[in-house]
Amino acid sequence: MIRAIVFDAYGTLFDVHSVMGACEHRFPHRGAELSRLWRQKQLEYTWLRSLMDRYENFERITSDALVHACGALGLHLDDAGRVALMDEYRHLAPYPEVPSTLLELADRPKVILSNGSPAMLDAVVANAGLESGFEAVLSVDPLRIFKPSPRVYQLAVDRLGVAPAEIGFASSNSWDIAGATAFGFTTFWINRAGQHADELGQTPHAVLSGLDQLAGHL
Amino acid sequence: MIRAIVFDAYGTLFDVHSVMGACEHRFPHRGAELSRLWRQKQLEYTWLRSLMDRYENFERITSDALVHACGALGLHLDDAGRVALMDEYRHLAPYPEVPSTLLELADRPKVILSNGSPAMLDAVVANAGLESGFEAVLSVDPLRIFKPSPRVYQLAVDRLGVAPAEIGFASSNSWDIAGATAFGFTTFWINRAGQHADELGQTPHAVLSGLDQLAGHL
Repeated sequence: MIRAIVFDAYGTLFDVHSVMGACEHRFPHRGAELSRLWRQKQLEYTWLRSLMDRYENFERITSDALVHACGALGLHLDDAGRVALMDEYRHLAPYPEVPSTLLELADRPKVILSNGSPAMLDAVVANAGLESGFEAVLSVDPLRIFKPSPRVYQLAVDRLGVAPAEIGFASSNSWDIAGATAFGFTTFWINRAGQHADELGQTPHAVLSGLDQLAGHL
Repeated sequence: MIRAIVFDAYGTLFDVHSVMGACEHRFPHRGAELSRLWRQKQLEYTWLRSLMDRYENFERITSDALVHACGALGLHLDDAGRVALMDEYRHLAPYPEVPSTLLELADRPKVILSNGSPAMLDAVVANAGLESGFEAVLSVDPLRIFKPSPRVYQLAVDRLGVAPAEIGFASSNSWDIAGATAFGFTTFWINRAGQHADELGQTPHAVLSGLDQLAGHL
């Protein structure tokens, strides 16, 4: 019995593809490799800073990752370019099935649980007009540690007052699903791109090709 | 005043390039991308399992990363292939300057501090004939957490009985250098390939192009 739903934000509710477009616009023919390295370093820095006990918020980490990625690829990034690319994260489009999925799940509490800083999350949710779809937008920021620390998943349990196994957790990130499964959530891997699962000793409850399949699995 | 030296193992003392050769031999024309993804996933899994509090030793993680990388790249890996590729990690060659560097530093205690499991480390050190070069080979394994946790760097302090700032730490991994710098070691980034430093808010004491420059900087 799933009594509440927790959603990851970036890549799960919000399409980060537009970031690649903005990278390509600024650095023609290099957008794909820049956005790939930017995303990889963004994730690495969340894990490394968590382990180092040197937390900085997701906005700072995302900016640092962009600076590194441009440097490593020999791309000249000035301040205006950095500000413009960072701004993309506040204007991501939700995936097309998000509004109808939220309506289908209207009978259950729904929250966002994200690495994003509160300011980034509030902006992207407001710009997409989705404020009314969620009971809460939970950021890791007060904990000063990132996913997949179990302390992050506990945030949602504390807020919802529902046991982990009765919480459905949806994420497009295989490693996030592994962390949430280890924590005890009932997990739904939103694998739109048909990616290969990470080998972290955890198996999701179900693998779905989009959020529109979620209601049918509850 | 540097009173003792701590070395990272893989990529710093031991050349992991031969792993690429073995990947290429088994999967012609795919060796470079396989060894790159294998290494990336190997590191990611150390960070993710540490954060998830789901430790498995480095041998298991390295094998899991290989299985994932082959699956993601559509390469068929049978048991014999997995065993043969894993065996490479026990027979890595030391970089050419390692023996002379150890002799130049003969007046100071020297230890290895590595993510590797004790069995993997003992094998690679013995196969390279370097047992007599180090006072100790320290593995993260008893702590059940990986670099860059400060608990790992503390292992070397406890063993050497020397203050962090009086310990010289050499690693080829920029993120390992960041963790060791944040911990308080005097750090030497061995940047043989001229890579771009990670943006983790830490600056090494010196950047060297090989271990042969180490003695001149102490």
